Amino acid sequence: MQKIKGQGLPVLAIDLGGTKIIAAIISNQGQVMAREQCLTLADEGPQSVINRILSAIDHLLSLSRIDSSQLNSISIAAAGAINFEKGLVTSSPNLPGWYNIPLRDVVKEKYRVNTFLINDASAAALGEHHFGAGKGINNFIYLTLGTGIGGGIIINGKLYSGPCGSAGEIGHMTIDVNGPRCSCGNIGCLETLASGTAVAREAVRRIRQGEVSSLTEIVEGEIESITAEKVGAAAQDGDSLALEVILKAANYLGVGMVNLVNIFNPEMIIVGGGVAKMGDLLLDPAKQVVRERAFQLPAQAVSIVPAQLGDDAGVLGAAAFAFQQGLD
Amino acid sequence: MQKIKGQGLPVLAIDLGGTKIIAAIISNQGQVMAREQCLTLADEGPQSVINRILSAIDHLLSLSRIDSSQLNSISIAAAGAINFEKGLVTSSPNLPGWYNIPLRDVVKEKYRVNTFLINDASAAALGEHHFGAGKGINNFIYLTLGTGIGGGIIINGKLYSGPCGSAGEIGHMTIDVNGPRCSCGNIGCLETLASGTAVAREAVRRIRQGEVSSLTEIVEGEIESITAEKVGAAAQDGDSLALEVILKAANYLGVGMVNLVNIFNPEMIIVGGGVAKMGDLLLDPAKQVVRERAFQLPAQAVSIVPAQLGDDAGVLGAAAFAFQQGLD
Repeated sequence: MQKIKGQGLPVLAIDLGGTKIIAAIISNQGQVMAREQCLTLADEGPQSVINRILSAIDHLLSLSRIDSSQLNSISIAAAGAINFEKGLVTSSPNLPGWYNIPLRDVVKEKYRVNTFLINDASAAALGEHHFGAGKGINNFIYLTLGTGIGGGIIINGKLYSGPCGSAGEIGHMTIDVNGPRCSCGNIGCLETLASGTAVAREAVRRIRQGEVSSLTEIVEGEIESITAEKVGAAAQDGDSLALEVILKAANYLGVGMVNLVNIFNPEMIIVGGGVAKMGDLLLDPAKQVVRERAFQLPAQAVSIVPAQLGDDAGVLGAAAFAFQQGLD
Repeated sequence: MQKIKGQGLPVLAIDLGGTKIIAAIISNQGQVMAREQCLTLADEGPQSVINRILSAIDHLLSLSRIDSSQLNSISIAAAGAINFEKGLVTSSPNLPGWYNIPLRDVVKEKYRVNTFLINDASAAALGEHHFGAGKGINNFIYLTLGTGIGGGIIINGKLYSGPCGSAGEIGHMTIDVNGPRCSCGNIGCLETLASGTAVAREAVRRIRQGEVSSLTEIVEGEIESITAEKVGAAAQDGDSLALEVILKAANYLGVGMVNLVNIFNPEMIIVGGGVAKMGDLLLDPAKQVVRERAFQLPAQAVSIVPAQLGDDAGVLGAAAFAFQQGLD
């Protein structure tokens, strides 16, 4: 194997989400050597968020008593559409005001070290590949179900992100051509039908129409404060409206998975993100749809499993991406 | 480069379609050295079709005055779902009675030469990559619009066919979750909405409901004999029903393309197959949908173009696949 500059050095990885920022120093064995976390406070706008990222990096370096020249690189996973080549966050539904923000170069210029910027779902896919449910699996799709639905594609053991770095937007695949408009501008996207936002919206809609549910008491009548998490909890307790809402979303999720199975013939579909914490309540009906509707051969070949890494998938994956760059 | 046994020798390639069988001897420069074509007569069943394939191979070898030991390999592209590892045609909507037919081994045992069996749309994708519209393009999707809709995925310059060899079934992606049932068992597949069959069916449906169209005269009142080709011809002549039917199919095609653009961020989408002969009538509205609905960055990056190779895409691609095997 070719000797690569900085190969034995750790990566400083950042996961920039709509809610929180995670920063960690990660060894080339995938060990988290130092970690910190703060709120994104995205509403304060890009400059303020960038300042928090820089401050987290400074703090981690000082905690670990190293300077940036002792890093392999800095690798940032961000919740949004990324222009990989130019190092821009081009837009982000969860980061207000982020349009063509040159996040990579801001960081690179300050720390004078190789810096990468990739999509957070892509990073999580890589994280699961190197250290989680996808270890040893060379062809899989990672789906993250949260406020939105993101995706990452691993083909022949590597992240496939396409020529512009924007591939993997699986949440923005139309499955209902006559469905609701999505925040991305497209129509009937999987995200509008099966995300956490969709689950909460559907429960709110039905309760407002006068249907009875224990959710009304749980939120003390403040219907707007119903979240997917609360719908999940009510369903676990046997609330029939909550169960129906989740079954409906799970069916849509299954339809999306059928598309992925027919198109990719993946060995595995790994499901992560907050909504995936509902577990079998969501995955069992989705698997049933795959068994019933997808082509038989790839349907039998695919395993549909929960993600393993939880909150650290993004930073572990961002680090794995950076380590892999040196080896290509 | 490693020296490979048989590398300079030609490939005998077969394209087994629902209507015709094409057989050709192809040099490693992609030159068609000999070619013949016969009807599939698929209704006579698998054994009869296999006999015609064997007879075409015998005839080509004798025409070319070579025996099978002077071939690099035999490579078969077939219209159906393929189990690549086992060399089976597992099923095929256009080849009645073909369930788990061991076509690869039947040929291999007779001619005692390396034999490959791949899907015909995958082969055509490879053909366009090596010799047609996709030359020099490393990431593209090939779509074939005919009786059905098939697909082939080229990633990093190679055919991506998935662990079971069944990837690329882009026609069997649900885009209308409340749509009609597809022959594959799934619901609202792109194929049920935008294939040649769908175009003809929609024209027939509207005319039966009493709508006026020049198609009624063209088929001399035999409404059932309306084909997509005839709808295309009527549309070219300005028939408004035909134009509307094609616009509707083109819109569905555009929705399918949006999904491909958001998921794959391909450099190119190449559109082949009989229905694609309608040209801009079909492609222009589909491109418009992509511009309006897909993510901006990949939508600007993708070229949507007609295929270049016509009928020989399958045999050229099957040969390219065989030549590439030696080099991996």
